[in-house]
Amino acid sequence: MTKPIWIKHAKQLATLASEVSGPRAKEAMSDLGLIEDGSLWIEAGIIQAVGTTEELEKRYSDKLHLAEIINATDHLVTPGLVDPHTHVVYGGSREHEFEMRLQGATYMDIMNAGGGIHATARFTREATETELIEQTTRRLDSFLAHGVTTIEGKSGYGMNLETELKQLRVMKKLQEQHMIDIVPTFMGAHAVPPEYKGREDEFVKHLIEDMLPLIAEENLAEFNDVFCEKGVYTPEQSEQILEAGKRLGLIPKIHADEIEPYGGAELAAKIGAISAEHLLKASEEGIKAMAKSGTIACLLPATALYLREEAAQGRKMIDLGVPVAISTDCNPGSSPTTSMPLVMNLACISMRLTPAESLTAATYNAACAINRQNQVGSLEVGKQADFVIWNTKSYQELQYLFGVNHVKAVWKKGVKVV
Amino acid sequence: MTKPIWIKHAKQLATLASEVSGPRAKEAMSDLGLIEDGSLWIEAGIIQAVGTTEELEKRYSDKLHLAEIINATDHLVTPGLVDPHTHVVYGGSREHEFEMRLQGATYMDIMNAGGGIHATARFTREATETELIEQTTRRLDSFLAHGVTTIEGKSGYGMNLETELKQLRVMKKLQEQHMIDIVPTFMGAHAVPPEYKGREDEFVKHLIEDMLPLIAEENLAEFNDVFCEKGVYTPEQSEQILEAGKRLGLIPKIHADEIEPYGGAELAAKIGAISAEHLLKASEEGIKAMAKSGTIACLLPATALYLREEAAQGRKMIDLGVPVAISTDCNPGSSPTTSMPLVMNLACISMRLTPAESLTAATYNAACAINRQNQVGSLEVGKQADFVIWNTKSYQELQYLFGVNHVKAVWKKGVKVV
Ligand SMILES: [Zn+2]
Ligand SMILES: [Zn+2]
Repeated sequence: MTKPIWIKHAKQLATLASEVSGPRAKEAMSDLGLIEDGSLWIEAGIIQAVGTTEELEKRYSDKLHLAEIINATDHLVTPGLVDPHTHVVYGGSREHEFEMRLQGATYMDIMNAGGGIHATARFTREATETELIEQTTRRLDSFLAHGVTTIEGKSGYGMNLETELKQLRVMKKLQEQHMIDIVPTFMGAHAVPPEYKGREDEFVKHLIEDMLPLIAEENLAEFNDVFCEKGVYTPEQSEQILEAGKRLGLIPKIHADEIEPYGGAELAAKIGAISAEHLLKASEEGIKAMAKSGTIACLLPATALYLREEAAQGRKMIDLGVPVAISTDCNPGSSPTTSMPLVMNLACISMRLTPAESLTAATYNAACAINRQNQVGSLEVGKQADFVIWNTKSYQELQYLFGVNHVKAVWKKGVKVV
Repeated sequence: MTKPIWIKHAKQLATLASEVSGPRAKEAMSDLGLIEDGSLWIEAGIIQAVGTTEELEKRYSDKLHLAEIINATDHLVTPGLVDPHTHVVYGGSREHEFEMRLQGATYMDIMNAGGGIHATARFTREATETELIEQTTRRLDSFLAHGVTTIEGKSGYGMNLETELKQLRVMKKLQEQHMIDIVPTFMGAHAVPPEYKGREDEFVKHLIEDMLPLIAEENLAEFNDVFCEKGVYTPEQSEQILEAGKRLGLIPKIHADEIEPYGGAELAAKIGAISAEHLLKASEEGIKAMAKSGTIACLLPATALYLREEAAQGRKMIDLGVPVAISTDCNPGSSPTTSMPLVMNLACISMRLTPAESLTAATYNAACAINRQNQVGSLEVGKQADFVIWNTKSYQELQYLFGVNHVKAVWKKGVKVV
């Protein structure tokens, strides 16, 4: 039997515990369930008690001598961060494209030089499972180092059955091998594969009839995502794909309204998607529909920064009652980063979330966006002991002192991993 | 005698060595003096040789067995970063103000609650030297952890003689105590002290007649800086202050055109300031005048991000021939960060510098902006052995994989400090 672990004297313990079950909207996003001089008791990787240091000291007085004691004096302690939207499994690297762009190359120059998403698709098709596992492991290590203990990961750089399956199998293996939890999403409709250019409906048919059933049968994904955008997949095509997934037990997600208002937010609400992603250009009706349906807005302010776009209207969405989550969108083209702390900073700076809302968006609401709110995203009895000890004394300071990774230590399922 | 140190097999050694002496403009900013399979030989904290691993192996064949060997295989190695513009010495902390603003408080609400720069001035006036040293040391440690081995520091949170002297003496002590090099700037004219509201000319007279001579006599600063902006100090007042400093041997710097075009860039060129800071709203004539005079534009993209302002026109300035440096602007109000790596990323993302220009702006040109180009800012024979080993294989990757502190190790004067 492993030793119990006693975390004590956290200056601020942000438990994120709340009466509200399911995605938190409005005022509920500001309630961090703060405990001063906070304490956790952990056994076998599971949280057994949460309270003040004094309370837990009394309650476990006969077991204290058995415990490994972690002193968090002067430190903020939060749940492990959750990143609910990543494209973390990919081959190759595109730093030379980044340099070319800054040296004045146009989008077309880069496409003509074989760049863009199709470069990543090519690299990912060519990579072996072993190569993908190795490359992705480095990124997962970096996520952990930034306080992230659970991530979602999407396929979508294959856009053919073989490579989509390869990406999802890589995630399955990484879930077994790596300390981070990785929750898989199938996103065969990430772009239009070059082979199907101009024959999008045929690809949709292929995806629905040939890909989805196999993914479901092999149990390789929990979610089904689609890039609904002008010139990619229409709302009608997106609906077909997502409804087909639903019939096979895959929960819908949708990349919506990133480039122009296209009815993506509305569609997400209509079909009961668990979350809609990006939403830079979502219409007010779409936002209101999402508030009504309880669809989580998964916002990606690092992507907006990297692309020099105005960030999504996070403040307005919260004010209108939409539950907001945030994510890195980690991907080689528009957001090559693993830093959820920076994303939290940007949620405040660019989207005007308060420091408390930003933390809720990166923990509890992010967990809801990938259906893991019963395991992670808050520090409550019975949940996984996934938590971060920060080099700041408060959640306010964590968001204020920006651009710095304030992680002091990261624990996953009761094990210190950073 | 200390052991020689041999750094070998750097995948990319960005020496920043160049024929151009003094601030680099235009194409010279793209020349990183790259050596593949690069190597450094260090004795007594000073670089003795720079070349390929093969070259140095031959040259020091009879001494190799004496050396401490550092294998940098697969890693980028660059000069230690230089931050040429910080307000790092201050009392107090303002995270609650950050939270208030995001909860909807206006600028006036915060001022009425005793916030803003005058809060920092109050905290700094009240703090003892020991308290300031302790607080600043934490920030200096964080700078080092982000690969920064030399910084500039400004006074200016006192705005009375006693506190200005206190800030500068703290810097002098820190220069002795801390591994980082800290280069002091007097900035008594950082704001208008509340006691002098409406009597700015009187304060300028006090500053010139009472403060500057004492600063010069005690040898407490190398530079003299002023906040030239509408409602603060006019170009005429700024010129008086900076010319008075020049007569005492203090090199002029100037916070210019941050909020509106106010002739600050033009003034910097006219009086031969070593650098002009911010420049968000600098006029095209001002920029051209700076190009002509060789005045360095010290650009602060993290501040622009934090304040949600459009960043300075770094790309245009370089194209017009201005030598550009970049900096954190580390301060408690508009840029509470110590991350020069993030600033390099933002120089690319927000100001369209190329990855190479961004690195030059954070090393050699930054050193020029604080008159330290003969000691630091490049890896050349006779210079301090200040360098960073990065967890990336190239300078392109360093800028591309953004928001992450890629530092693997930091060396200052031949000593490993991180
Ligand atoms: Zn995405
Ligand atoms: Zn400044």
